[in-house]
Amino acid sequence: MKKTANATESPLESAGTVRPGGRTARTREAVRRATLAELAEKGFSGLTVESVAIRSGVHKTTVYRRWRTPAALAADALGLAEADPWPLPDAGSLSEDLRSLAAQVVEGFTDPLTGPVTRALVAAAAQTPEAALALRSYLTTRHRQAAAVVHRAVERGELPAATDAEELIRATVAPLYYRLCITTEPVSPEDTTRAVTAALAAARAGVFSR
Amino acid sequence: MKKTANATESPLESAGTVRPGGRTARTREAVRRATLAELAEKGFSGLTVESVAIRSGVHKTTVYRRWRTPAALAADALGLAEADPWPLPDAGSLSEDLRSLAAQVVEGFTDPLTGPVTRALVAAAAQTPEAALALRSYLTTRHRQAAAVVHRAVERGELPAATDAEELIRATVAPLYYRLCITTEPVSPEDTTRAVTAALAAARAGVFSR
Repeated sequence: MKKTANATESPLESAGTVRPGGRTARTREAVRRATLAELAEKGFSGLTVESVAIRSGVHKTTVYRRWRTPAALAADALGLAEADPWPLPDAGSLSEDLRSLAAQVVEGFTDPLTGPVTRALVAAAAQTPEAALALRSYLTTRHRQAAAVVHRAVERGELPAATDAEELIRATVAPLYYRLCITTEPVSPEDTTRAVTAALAAARAGVFSR
Repeated sequence: MKKTANATESPLESAGTVRPGGRTARTREAVRRATLAELAEKGFSGLTVESVAIRSGVHKTTVYRRWRTPAALAADALGLAEADPWPLPDAGSLSEDLRSLAAQVVEGFTDPLTGPVTRALVAAAAQTPEAALALRSYLTTRHRQAAAVVHRAVERGELPAATDAEELIRATVAPLYYRLCITTEPVSPEDTTRAVTAALAAARAGVFSR
């Protein structure tokens, strides 16, 4: 039975499984949890395959065979996060929905539990092409999913039909990422509101029209 | 004579010196050049105090005494860069000036010579509080200097007098940094234009008014 499960479930095929059933998926999830815990404690520069193997309880040779480097561990954690479900806001107002999305971004960096992990994954992407690709994939997927709030606003007549929804999402979150990751300036509620209001003003002016 | 020069010139006092005259300033400049060259070749994760000392030609004990860590080397390189003069655009049109500033940001990351160094410094900031503080200082200084193009536009009547100039600068560059450093998506000339047009539309709508 175990052999069959291993043969039919590659890590990629099980990527969409949130609560994994097969042994391969369970191993991958255990390694992800250990990776995130290590990143939270030590940052990306402190991440080692060795310590993840020990923490995960997965056999060391298995971990080393599948995830050869700290970058591969970070990239795979991002790959699994990409498949995680997340709460897409739907308040009936684009301004409210964008505000919720913006608040989610800020919380991801400032929450005491998730903040250190989020920062460590961004640091991993700044250092290794493998993690950078995984972060790009993660974020472009999120942009595409979040675009639904813009599509609904277009249907309600709040925005021009030609609005490039993903560009509006990028414009909303970019000023927050700039403060959170680049200038490391504090982000006040006014900064979040300003990011949303500026993106909306540009959208209404047709700047994001295709 | 040498002793006198050392006693009167601290690295901080000579920060404003572009072509340094004293021995301390010359040492600092040599270490900066070696740091930037090492960052270009090896990235921040490959930066060591040892290799910078060798490359700079400065006595190893001097380098180790003043710059104890790779983070200190990266932070000091940013500190010196902050004092460097740079070309502030003045084309007589805010749109043109913002476009020049945006192009400078993109070029800093995509130019074959400066790109690897810029990325390495951002990676350093993502990993160490010391470099993060130095990058924040560098960028907030640049925002303050670049605000001059907005002040001139306000004087020409292009924008509301209450416009927060530095917020408009941040809004202009943030979508570019988001693509360059976070999503690592390519930045097309259209992306640069859109960043400028969106920030301007928001500014005209009064979003950045204090």
